Formats: sequence, structure tokens, C-alpha cells
Amino acid sequence: MIKRVNHIAIAVRSLDEALGVFESLLGIKAAHTETIPDQGVKAALIPIGDGEIELLEPIDPEGGVAKFIERRGEGIHHICLEVDNIDEELKSLAARGVELIDKRGRKGLAGRIGFLHPRAAKGVLIELAQKV
Amino acid sequence: MIKRVNHIAIAVRSLDEALGVFESLLGIKAAHTETIPDQGVKAALIPIGDGEIELLEPIDPEGGVAKFIERRGEGIHHICLEVDNIDEELKSLAARGVELIDKRGRKGLAGRIGFLHPRAAKGVLIELAQKV
Repeated sequence: MIKRVNHIAIAVRSLDEALGVFESLLGIKAAHTETIPDQGVKAALIPIGDGEIELLEPIDPEGGVAKFIERRGEGIHHICLEVDNIDEELKSLAARGVELIDKRGRKGLAGRIGFLHPRAAKGVLIELAQKV
Repeated sequence: MIKRVNHIAIAVRSLDEALGVFESLLGIKAAHTETIPDQGVKAALIPIGDGEIELLEPIDPEGGVAKFIERRGEGIHHICLEVDNIDEELKSLAARGVELIDKRGRKGLAGRIGFLHPRAAKGVLIELAQKV
């Protein structure tokens, strides 16, 4: 079951510069910054309501976020929807023929997470996350 | 003051087809569908938590959403953040030198709304909305 929007992720060239822009624009300070080596990014989380804006700067030039910026420029990279049970959700989507990037939940910044393929959702990259 | 994410808007070629895809994917039915002639779109709203996914199909080939799809394909078009007072917020942003599309609030689907220019937010089109 989809519960709510957990975060909206924005790919940016420089986290420091983007943090300045968004903190000033939104009047909200980032909660924290983290490096996620296996996703090839540094991330900063800005709380909005009960969700977050996640800014992503690529640290791996071969990673998905680096390639996204190369191809399309800076902008919204994915949205993350919160679910009760990530493995059940991914299994149920797969059984309905939905194209997935992750067949099973794995550790991510937002909890146990899994990505759907953008082809499954009209070009939108959707992450599902179960809080842990 | 930014209160929360009001909606995430996705530009699609066919509302009927996209509704089928997202309703099945999310397991949630659209709340309602509306035509917004001055924005050149038909819109469907799918409730998620206390926010919404807004699907937008262009009905005006010269409108912003039609041009977005032409240029970039289907995908996330904008995000909408809820504010207490749209006119105060736009005025304060303008005073801080933020590039705006709308200098004053106007009637939109999400209430009284105004758009920031994507140049102001790392390529992200941000709508602000005050519920009415």
C-alpha cells in the first residue's frame, strides 16, 4: 500500500551551490548531508511537511545521477513513495507485469528501498521505500 | 512559509492511458478529472497521503505542457508546494531576486497559485499554492 510521498529527488551539479539556492528559496535548512557510495551520490535532505526534498550530487561520473545530468541537465531525478512492506510491494508489482529495476528491497537513504523502471510509469523514475 | 508538498505533476500524452497505468501501479483511484483551459490541459488527481499526483494531458498544442512533452517526452512537469499566503510569498521571493513566472497569485486547480521560473530552482518548475 502506498502511504505518502517520502521525498522528491533533484539532481544537481554542486550540492553546496544547490543547498544555498533551495534553502534560501524555501526558507528551510537542510536536515543533514550524507554520502551514498553505492548510488554514486552525495545527498542533502531538506524537510518539507512530513516529506523531504533530496538534493543529489553525483560523485561517480559513471553513476545514474551523473548520466541523468549529462543527458537532461539538472532537475527532478525521481520521486519516492512510502510503502508498508517493500518486498511485498515489489513482488505484487512484478506479478502484475510492472517493469522493475529492483526485484527485492535493499538498503537506501530512505529505509529499505526499490526502484521501478521509468518505462513502467510514463518516464517517471519511482522509488518505493519502507521506513526502518 | 512552505507547509508541505501539495502535488507532483506529470505530463502525459493521454490522460486515459496514464490513468490506467498509475491507478494500477499505485492501487489508488483518481479523485477527479478537470479541464483547465487557461493552462491548456486536462488534469486528473490521484490522492497520495495528504498530497496528490496530478496527471496533465495537453489540450492546447501551443501550451507549456504540450511543448514540454515535445521537448523532453512524458515525465515530471512540476512540483507544487503549499504556502500560507501566496501573494506574500511571491512578493518576498521577488524582493530576494528570485525569478518568477507569476508576480501575483492567480486561480489554479490547487487554489491560488503562482509559478517560479525553473532557472530559479536548478531546472525544477515550482508552483506555490494557497488553498482557498
